[in-house]
Amino acid sequence: MSGTLFLVGVGPGDPELLTLKAVRVLGAAEVIAYPVTGDGAALALEIAGAHVRAGALRLPIEMPMAVERAPGQAAYDAAVAKIAAHLAAGRRVAWLCEGDPLFYGSAMYVLARLAGRAQIEIVPGVTSLTAAAAAAARPLAARNEVLKVLPAPLDDARLRAELMGAEAVAIIKVGRHFDRIRALLEETGHAAGAIVIEHATTAGQRVTPLAAFGPGERPYFSTILCYRGAEAWGE
Amino acid sequence: MSGTLFLVGVGPGDPELLTLKAVRVLGAAEVIAYPVTGDGAALALEIAGAHVRAGALRLPIEMPMAVERAPGQAAYDAAVAKIAAHLAAGRRVAWLCEGDPLFYGSAMYVLARLAGRAQIEIVPGVTSLTAAAAAAARPLAARNEVLKVLPAPLDDARLRAELMGAEAVAIIKVGRHFDRIRALLEETGHAAGAIVIEHATTAGQRVTPLAAFGPGERPYFSTILCYRGAEAWGE
Repeated sequence: MSGTLFLVGVGPGDPELLTLKAVRVLGAAEVIAYPVTGDGAALALEIAGAHVRAGALRLPIEMPMAVERAPGQAAYDAAVAKIAAHLAAGRRVAWLCEGDPLFYGSAMYVLARLAGRAQIEIVPGVTSLTAAAAAAARPLAARNEVLKVLPAPLDDARLRAELMGAEAVAIIKVGRHFDRIRALLEETGHAAGAIVIEHATTAGQRVTPLAAFGPGERPYFSTILCYRGAEAWGE
Repeated sequence: MSGTLFLVGVGPGDPELLTLKAVRVLGAAEVIAYPVTGDGAALALEIAGAHVRAGALRLPIEMPMAVERAPGQAAYDAAVAKIAAHLAAGRRVAWLCEGDPLFYGSAMYVLARLAGRAQIEIVPGVTSLTAAAAAAARPLAARNEVLKVLPAPLDDARLRAELMGAEAVAIIKVGRHFDRIRALLEETGHAAGAIVIEHATTAGQRVTPLAAFGPGERPYFSTILCYRGAEAWGE
């Protein structure tokens, strides 16, 4: 295949957090592939749309939201077949990724199917993780502290084990797990200093101490940061 | 203080990985503060220099490399006093940070001293972590996997405990700890798949399987990525 596939991180939401490299690559790609979720949203395209080359072919890729493996694999097989045809025709194809392509992103599924078969270039992007820290104006981690990124859907036993004694933690994919995560943070001594960041870097950004959420209140699309390192911030 | 302090992530090394926002902020700041290490290097300024406003005042901040706390704290006290004077005079001051300001960065020391006293805006940047993954073309983490960032200077017991059973690990600040880290990765079953990334996104970038380093060979300025998640990459 004589074309090139670019896996492009478009950052956490603010279009100004695209890199200069992402802007250059999007301005040159003849084909723009982007995920579309069940509700029709195409967030990566919304973020980066202004920089897409005029006349570029748009290739929406419908993402199944099923938890099972098979539908997801079939969707990626189909998406990659379409992309491969464009690469075989010598085109530059950009696959848009929210945040960074390789930080909990969909790019790994494309990589796994095309690595070794096509020229692939990865353009790293600003993650929702550092965007959340910037919004909260708090360190993610410093010095020789361990930073743990914990997806909220993990079971209680694993989360509890990772939280115990941790100095710097980011909990991602909080969604409907909020009440359970809050109880675990209380149990492991993280709740008092925890900060909830919703929709970092977008118009809907909201930064709230975990303790300020009343019973029954829940944040949407959020990351929770816990930091008790660097001598608890006195350094 | 009527000025504004911008803590600006300039990314991992490639000047094209600055964000549009970083470029805008640097083009408007009247004062540019940047760390200078003992050997005279000013890497953050080298990365971002092309976007600094013509005529901006340059404020090099000498960073003591001492491990003890006191000299570092005195250096930050002195640096912040200079910045505060510019902020009091109503100026826009940009503090350049390699990678992201709050991901193992120096910005926390500035934040701790000025939070609540001055207007501060944080511009997140691309980290060396996602840059390393992009260079290696491998996932950092996916799905509901835990990602651990482990600074190499930590003691063996802590590193061993964190490595045991981990699915996705990034080891940072490897430097002179390479031989010890390699032994720990062998002991905990991570060595076979580990990748060493040196100088990600710069002209000196080199990506090498850990297993390819001969005895006595050591990488410089590197990150080591270990990934055995997503059903060991078959997804």
